[in-house]
Amino acid sequence: MIKVTIWNEFLHEINNPIVASIYPEGIHGAIAAGLNCDQISVRTATLAEPEHGLSEETLNDTDVLIWWGHLAHDLVDDEIVERVYNRVLAGMGLIVLHSGHASKIFRKLLGTPTEQLKWREADEKERIWVIDPSHPIAAGIGEYIELEKEEMYGEHFHIPAPDQLVFVSWFEGGEVFRSGVTYSRGQGKVFYFRPGHESYPTYYNQEILRVIANGVRWAAPSATTAPSYGHSEPLERILVKS
Amino acid sequence: MIKVTIWNEFLHEINNPIVASIYPEGIHGAIAAGLNCDQISVRTATLAEPEHGLSEETLNDTDVLIWWGHLAHDLVDDEIVERVYNRVLAGMGLIVLHSGHASKIFRKLLGTPTEQLKWREADEKERIWVIDPSHPIAAGIGEYIELEKEEMYGEHFHIPAPDQLVFVSWFEGGEVFRSGVTYSRGQGKVFYFRPGHESYPTYYNQEILRVIANGVRWAAPSATTAPSYGHSEPLERILVKS
Amino acid sequence: MIKVTIWNEFLHEINNPIVASIYPEGIHGAIAAGLNCDQISVRTATLAEPEHGLSEETLNDTDVLIWWGHLAHDLVDDEIVERVYNRVLAGMGLIVLHSGHASKIFRKLLGTPTEQLKWREADEKERIWVIDPSHPIAAGIGEYIELEKEEMYGEHFHIPAPDQLVFVSWFEGGEVFRSGVTYSRGQGKVFYFRPGHESYPTYYNQEILRVIANGVRWAAPSATTAPSYGHSEPLERILVKS
Amino acid sequence: MIKVTIWNEFLHEINNPIVASIYPEGIHGAIAAGLNCDQISVRTATLAEPEHGLSEETLNDTDVLIWWGHLAHDLVDDEIVERVYNRVLAGMGLIVLHSGHASKIFRKLLGTPTEQLKWREADEKERIWVIDPSHPIAAGIGEYIELEKEEMYGEHFHIPAPDQLVFVSWFEGGEVFRSGVTYSRGQGKVFYFRPGHESYPTYYNQEILRVIANGVRWAAPSATTAPSYGHSEPLERILVKS
Repeated sequence: MIKVTIWNEFLHEINNPIVASIYPEGIHGAIAAGLNCDQISVRTATLAEPEHGLSEETLNDTDVLIWWGHLAHDLVDDEIVERVYNRVLAGMGLIVLHSGHASKIFRKLLGTPTEQLKWREADEKERIWVIDPSHPIAAGIGEYIELEKEEMYGEHFHIPAPDQLVFVSWFEGGEVFRSGVTYSRGQGKVFYFRPGHESYPTYYNQEILRVIANGVRWAAPSATTAPSYGHSEPLERILVKS
Repeated sequence: MIKVTIWNEFLHEINNPIVASIYPEGIHGAIAAGLNCDQISVRTATLAEPEHGLSEETLNDTDVLIWWGHLAHDLVDDEIVERVYNRVLAGMGLIVLHSGHASKIFRKLLGTPTEQLKWREADEKERIWVIDPSHPIAAGIGEYIELEKEEMYGEHFHIPAPDQLVFVSWFEGGEVFRSGVTYSRGQGKVFYFRPGHESYPTYYNQEILRVIANGVRWAAPSATTAPSYGHSEPLERILVKS
Repeated sequence: MIKVTIWNEFLHEINNPIVASIYPEGIHGAIAAGLNCDQISVRTATLAEPEHGLSEETLNDTDVLIWWGHLAHDLVDDEIVERVYNRVLAGMGLIVLHSGHASKIFRKLLGTPTEQLKWREADEKERIWVIDPSHPIAAGIGEYIELEKEEMYGEHFHIPAPDQLVFVSWFEGGEVFRSGVTYSRGQGKVFYFRPGHESYPTYYNQEILRVIANGVRWAAPSATTAPSYGHSEPLERILVKS
Repeated sequence: MIKVTIWNEFLHEINNPIVASIYPEGIHGAIAAGLNCDQISVRTATLAEPEHGLSEETLNDTDVLIWWGHLAHDLVDDEIVERVYNRVLAGMGLIVLHSGHASKIFRKLLGTPTEQLKWREADEKERIWVIDPSHPIAAGIGEYIELEKEEMYGEHFHIPAPDQLVFVSWFEGGEVFRSGVTYSRGQGKVFYFRPGHESYPTYYNQEILRVIANGVRWAAPSATTAPSYGHSEPLERILVKS
C-alpha cells in the first residue's frame, strides 16, 4: 500500500464559480477519487490548514506527495517547504502538477527558475506524445493522450536537462513542451507532469489519472539505505609517504 | 509473478574442476536458487540446448532474461541473438552479468565494442559503491558491497554514457569501474552488473543476489503500448500552401 | 581548420528532375557551399565513387563526416561502414542528416532500429524549437527555426535516450519529433539533425546551415588520448589473501 | 579571447603558514599563472574585496568564473550569489573547484545539499580516471591523472545525476568519487572538478591545469539567443471550439 498525500492550494475552486463547477470537491478531491485503489491510499492537504496540512507526522507517513498550486506559491511557508525538501531527499516521492512548476519546492529542488516558460489560455488542443515507451510512467497509455482544450505551456521551459524525458506535448498554436520529466534528488524521485489547468476537467480524464497513478508507483520510495556523509575513516591501509 | 529465464553458457563449470566445485549446479543454478521467491519464477537455459534454450516460445514467456557468458560468445547463433534483441525492444528486460559485457546481444544493443575494458585476475578486493541511492536497483544495499576476491574490470569501459549510473567499483589494484549501469532500448530495459567471475563464489553473496533481484523487478516490462511506425495520416488539417 | 567530408548518396538529384532543379550541384554541393569558411575546409564523397569516396586515406584526413542518404542505404558496403564506425570510435565527428537516420552507420552506432519513425510528405510547416539554449549547436539561433514546407517525421523515433536533446520539432499535422540529438561513442561525437528532405530547398536556409556548422565545430575531435584496453598490471600492490 | 575571473576566498593562504608557503601568490594566483595564454585572459577576485571583487561590471565582462572557497562560504553575500547565479543562467560559464562544492552558488544551482560527501585528510594517493574520452575537458590527458597526496572525497556525493560524467577518482583508502561532472543551467555551463586541497601543490600540476583550461574553453558562452518567457501569442491559428 502506497500512502499518497495530495496537496492543493484550493483557492480557485473557492473563488471562481466556473472552477468550482468543474471541481466541486476541489482539484485534490478529483485526483483523490481517481487514484484511490487497492494499492494506493490517499489523503489530502490544503494551504489553509495548519502547517498547510503538512505536519511532520503527515509527511513522515507519506510515500508520495502530489503538489498542485498556482495563485499563492509565495504564501507557502518556507519552513514547510524546507520540511518537504528534506523528506524528498530522504526518499519521499514528489509529483508536481501543471502550475506547480512555479512552486517554491520545485524551484528549490531543481535549482533553476522553473517558473519561466511560455503560456497562453486559449482553449487549445494538446497532444501529449509518449517519448520513452520503456518508462513505467507511460504504462497503459497509447501513442499519445489528446486533450481537447488545455492551457498552452511552451518551450523554453527553464528546467535542468531531465534524467528521463517521458512525454512531449504538441499544441495547436505552434509550440512544444517537455510535459513529463523525471529527476532524482538524493533518495527521492521527482516527476513533473504538465496538464491540469483549473478551468478544464483534465483531472477526470482516465489517461491523465493513469499517468499520475503510474507516477505514484514509480516515485514510491525504494527502501534504499540512507547514505552517510562527513569525516570518514579509511577502509584500506594508507601508505605513509615521506 | 515475474518470469525470469537465466541463460548461462555453462562451460567453465563442466571443463574446470575448480569452477565445478564452486558452482556444482552451474552459475545459472546458483542464481536461480538465489532468486526464486513468491514474486519471481525462474527457469534456466544453456548454450548446449537446442536453440540455446531460447525458443520463441520460451522468450515470449520471459519477462526478464539474465545473461552470463564468457568463453563462447561467438558460438551463440546470430538468429537467436536477433530473437533476443527483438524481444528486448518489445519490452523484455535484460540483465547482463560480468563477462556478458562481451556478448553479441550486449554489443548489438549498445552499439559500441563493449568487449573492451581493462581486466586482471589477481584475487583483488572489490568495493561496489552505491552512486544513486534513489534507484530501486540499490534498495536494501548499504553504502557499498565488499567482495573479498574478484576479477578486476577497469575503465575505460567502452559503453555509451549510461541512462543511469547506479554503482561504481573500487579495486585494490588502483582502478575504478562503472559496475551498475542501465539503458532503455525501445520498450525494454537493460541492466549491466559487473561482479561474478566464475572462479569466485560471488553468486552466493546475499547482497549480490539482492541487487540481481532488484534488477529483475526494475527491468520487468511496464505494459506500455507498443509504438507504431511508418507512413502516418495527419492528425490535424494541413494548410495547402501555394 | 576543421576538415569536413560531406557524404551524399547522390541519387535523387540524378534521377529526379525536381530534385535536380533544387540541388543542381547535389545536396552535398549545397551544404559544401554553405559550410566553407576560414575555419572549415570541405570535400565531398558520393556512393558511386570507388569505396564510396571514403578511402582510409580520406577518412583519416577527416575531422567530421556529414552523412546524407535515403534510397540506397543497403548499397553502402559493410566494409566501408565498419571503417567509418572505427573512425568515429577513434574520434572523428559524425553528423547524420534527415533520412540518414536509416543508414547502416547510424543504426550500428546507436544499437536500435533507428530507421523506425513516423513520416509523411505533405508540404507541412515545421517549427524546430531550441530545447537546450546552453548548447553550442544552438548558437546564433533564435527560439526556433521555421521551415515553411518539410517532410514530417514523428515520434516515436526509435533511438536510445540521447545524451543531449538540443531541438524538438512541431509539425502542422499534429506530431512532435526529437530533431537534434547528440551521443558520444568512444572518443567520437555524433549529432543527428532532422531537416533536409530532398524535395525542399532546406539546405539553402541560413539557420539550417548555421546549425550544421555549429555541429561541425562541436563534433570536431578533442585531441583526447586514446584509452587502452585488455589485460592490465596493477597500479597498486595487492594484498595476498590466504 | 576568453575572459576568466578566478575567485578565491583567500583565507588559508593568509592564516596558515604552510598553505602560504605552498601558494605564496594565493590559490588564485597559482591558477592564474597556469591559465594565462594567448586564448585566455585572467583576472582575480577575492572575498575581502568590495562586493567580493564581483561587481556587476566585472561579471558582465566575465566569460567563465572559477570558484575556490572553503572556510567562509557563509560570508559570501547572498546578493552577490544571486548576481553570479543570474549571470550563469544568462550564459557565463562556472568552474567550481574542490571545496567549492559547499559554496552557496553551487548549492543554489544544483538544488541538492552539495556540501554533503565523505572526506578525510590523510595524504592519500588519488587517481583521477577519464570516464568520457570524447569530452573536450579530458583533451590531452592520458588514461588518468595521479596525485601523490590529496584530500579524500568519497561517495555518496549529494549532487543530481550529472549531464556528463568526465572523471571518477580512486583513493588509496578505499573510496571512489565523481571528480569531474558537468551541468547545463539555462544558457550557462557548469563544471565541477574535485582536486585542489589547500595543503597540497595540486594547482601547479600541469595536467590539473590542463583540465581547468579545457574546462574554461568548454564552459565559455555559446552566443546562443536568450529564450523569452511569459504570455505568448499563438504562432498558428487556433480552432474555435464550441
